[in-house]
Amino acid sequence: LPNFRLIVEYDGTDFEGWQVQPKGSRTVQGCIAESFEGIVGAPVAVLGSGRTDAGVHAEGQVASALAETRLDPEELRRALNAKLPDDIAVVRLERTNESFDPRRDALSKHYRYRIWNHPIRSPLRARRFWWRRAALDLVAMRRAAEALVGEHDFESFQATGSDVKTTVRRLLRVEIVGETGGEIVLDFEGDGFLRYMVRNLVGTLAEVGLSRRSADEMGKLLAARDRGQAGATAPALGLTLMAVRYPDASARSDE
Amino acid sequence: LPNFRLIVEYDGTDFEGWQVQPKGSRTVQGCIAESFEGIVGAPVAVLGSGRTDAGVHAEGQVASALAETRLDPEELRRALNAKLPDDIAVVRLERTNESFDPRRDALSKHYRYRIWNHPIRSPLRARRFWWRRAALDLVAMRRAAEALVGEHDFESFQATGSDVKTTVRRLLRVEIVGETGGEIVLDFEGDGFLRYMVRNLVGTLAEVGLSRRSADEMGKLLAARDRGQAGATAPALGLTLMAVRYPDASARSDE
Repeated sequence: LPNFRLIVEYDGTDFEGWQVQPKGSRTVQGCIAESFEGIVGAPVAVLGSGRTDAGVHAEGQVASALAETRLDPEELRRALNAKLPDDIAVVRLERTNESFDPRRDALSKHYRYRIWNHPIRSPLRARRFWWRRAALDLVAMRRAAEALVGEHDFESFQATGSDVKTTVRRLLRVEIVGETGGEIVLDFEGDGFLRYMVRNLVGTLAEVGLSRRSADEMGKLLAARDRGQAGATAPALGLTLMAVRYPDASARSDE
Repeated sequence: LPNFRLIVEYDGTDFEGWQVQPKGSRTVQGCIAESFEGIVGAPVAVLGSGRTDAGVHAEGQVASALAETRLDPEELRRALNAKLPDDIAVVRLERTNESFDPRRDALSKHYRYRIWNHPIRSPLRARRFWWRRAALDLVAMRRAAEALVGEHDFESFQATGSDVKTTVRRLLRVEIVGETGGEIVLDFEGDGFLRYMVRNLVGTLAEVGLSRRSADEMGKLLAARDRGQAGATAPALGLTLMAVRYPDASARSDE
């Protein structure tokens, strides 16, 4: 069957995440598969670069879909977007080789976490930003983030109850931009992420920002390999999967 | 009674506008009055600088409220925000003179209209941007907008069925920033706006942007004083009341 590569944008607010659930909740993967099947008239296997949890958004999720169709990619994309609900859109669609697997082939992913760091909550930011009322010390947070870059065992930042072969991941970049008293953006790029890893890192960095933790203790936290010692999980609504990168440079999902 | 001046931010998506409706729909004014009354234990008259229609947002709506309370302004603001729903917040609150009337005293208002001008709709922009698929000619739109600045009779851009003493208004500024194929922002500042005026101006400018109308015909359109000759009304979701300005410079709602 011909294989298609999709770049997908969604507002995660009203989804129970990417992955189809047994009980049949509203999921991004489920909506895409259903729209595809309505067009090609046969079951379609939709694979993603990884799951995003309930409430997490995406600007550049990457997916593949094996399907037989007489439509060209442009027509197929239009037909999909006409069928998809307002909170999902296929922003790019192209033919790809049969063996393309968006999860296995991914080189790195870029996640962005948004914080509204202001004494007063902001209704117009309520769906995309985590509201932190008290002033965050960005200098301390940046210093703490430095210790995270590189290859580390991130078990301390993994959701409890996860079952993966290895908890070693390589963080390529952590960047914290913005201002205390306004919008703060935290960018994480890495070769892979454990479940809740970004949200647990953000929750821990926010505690550093409040001086509840020292910026120096990140190394110790990593070495402890103990979820109980890291900070609370930041809420899903602040998180967006921005892009996934592949060996083929043209296949970066944000270009 | 002591008078308070409020600056209010709201996501208009789930409101039937600012103004309390006889049938008891969900309105911004209604929610603020109800929260106020819950705190002070007496009826509170809440006045706005003007109505915003259903679906229109605000970053800097200005309101007044006459209320007797032992709370200081800071405590009152916190108490209000604790009671208000997630889609409204009081971003500033202060004592003002008894005679302050946010509608009568306003010198000018600033509205912003957002367009997502891209072949593909954007789920993450769906609540704030009007999606226009075809490329808009910004140069032509800017040229057309020039003819609108100054004092004119805007009857051609007023909602049909309106009943106001005069349809003459002064537009102080129209600015169009952004790029074809991306986000476009249209800023309107004026001493007053007729019902649907910004949305009718945007709808008409968008037709200029598509070359369905010439940039030169704005003067003729104004002179016609005929709603039937202007363009369609742009949807409410793209519109935000950014700020209201008052004679007291300190009372600009965006500072």
